[in-house]
Amino acid sequence: MKFFACLATAATLLTVVVPASAQFAKPEDAVKYRQSALSVMGTHFGRLGAMANGKVPFDAKVAADNAQLVAVMARLPWAGFGPGTDKDPRSKAMSEVWTEQAKFQAASEKLVAEADKMAAATKTGNLDALKTSFGATADSCKSCHDTFRNK
Amino acid sequence: MKFFACLATAATLLTVVVPASAQFAKPEDAVKYRQSALSVMGTHFGRLGAMANGKVPFDAKVAADNAQLVAVMARLPWAGFGPGTDKDPRSKAMSEVWTEQAKFQAASEKLVAEADKMAAATKTGNLDALKTSFGATADSCKSCHDTFRNK
Repeated sequence: MKFFACLATAATLLTVVVPASAQFAKPEDAVKYRQSALSVMGTHFGRLGAMANGKVPFDAKVAADNAQLVAVMARLPWAGFGPGTDKDPRSKAMSEVWTEQAKFQAASEKLVAEADKMAAATKTGNLDALKTSFGATADSCKSCHDTFRNK
Repeated sequence: MKFFACLATAATLLTVVVPASAQFAKPEDAVKYRQSALSVMGTHFGRLGAMANGKVPFDAKVAADNAQLVAVMARLPWAGFGPGTDKDPRSKAMSEVWTEQAKFQAASEKLVAEADKMAAATKTGNLDALKTSFGATADSCKSCHDTFRNK
C-alpha cells in the first residue's frame, strides 16, 4: 500500500469541493453529505480535544493522524450548501448562509486555514502546539456555528 | 497552504482506524460515524461512477481528486463496528459482522486495497484505467453489502 502516499495539496482538493450545486442530484443529498462530512470531522476533532484538554494521554502520532483527517474533512462540507438546500427539514443552516455568502465562505476558509495549521502543529509532536492550534480551530468552529447554525 | 502536502501513508492512517471500540463514548456515536464516513465515501465514489459510465464527461483531475478521497474514506468506517454497535436501531449491519469478524475485516481490507488501486489508476489520466478500477472497487462494495448489510 505504499503507493498511497499523498492525498493532495489544498489547492488540488479544493477543485473537488468548490463547484457546489451541480454535484448533488437532490438537495437532501447535499444536506446529508455536508452533515456527514461535518460529523466525521467532529469525531476526529473531538479526539484532538480530548488530548488537548488532558482527558486522554497525549499521543503525538494519533494527534497528527487525527489532525490530518480534520484538515481533509474541513474542505468537504461547503459544497453541500448549494441553492435550495436550506429547504430540507434536516438542515440546521440559518438563512444567513445564503444571504451572507461572502461571510460564510470566509468562515469556511478560516476553518480550513486553522485546520491546516493544526495539522502542521501536530507534526511537531508538541502538546502545547496542539493545545494552541486546537483552541484556534475550535474558535473558528464556534464562530461559524454562532452565526450560521440554528441550535 | 502549500505545507498541506500529504495526508498519510496507509499504514499511518490505519493507526487511527484500527483500535475501534474505545474511540466512541456511546454505540450510537460509532454507528453515526461509520454511516457518515460511508456516506461521504459513497458520494465521491458515485462521481467516479458517473464518469466511468459515461453519464458525465471524464475529467482526469476531478477523477483523481475523488478517487483519493475515496481511498481516505475507505479506511474510516471500520472503527465504528465495535462491540454493542449492532444494537442501535439505525444500524443496518448483519450479525455476521461480529460472528465472522475475520471475513468482515478481510472485506474491509479488500475495499481499501481496491480504492488504493483506483487512486493510483486515476493518476494516469486514463479513462479505461478508471473504468477497470472503478468496477473492481464497486465489486468489493457489493460483495460486502451482500454479506454483511441488511437491505
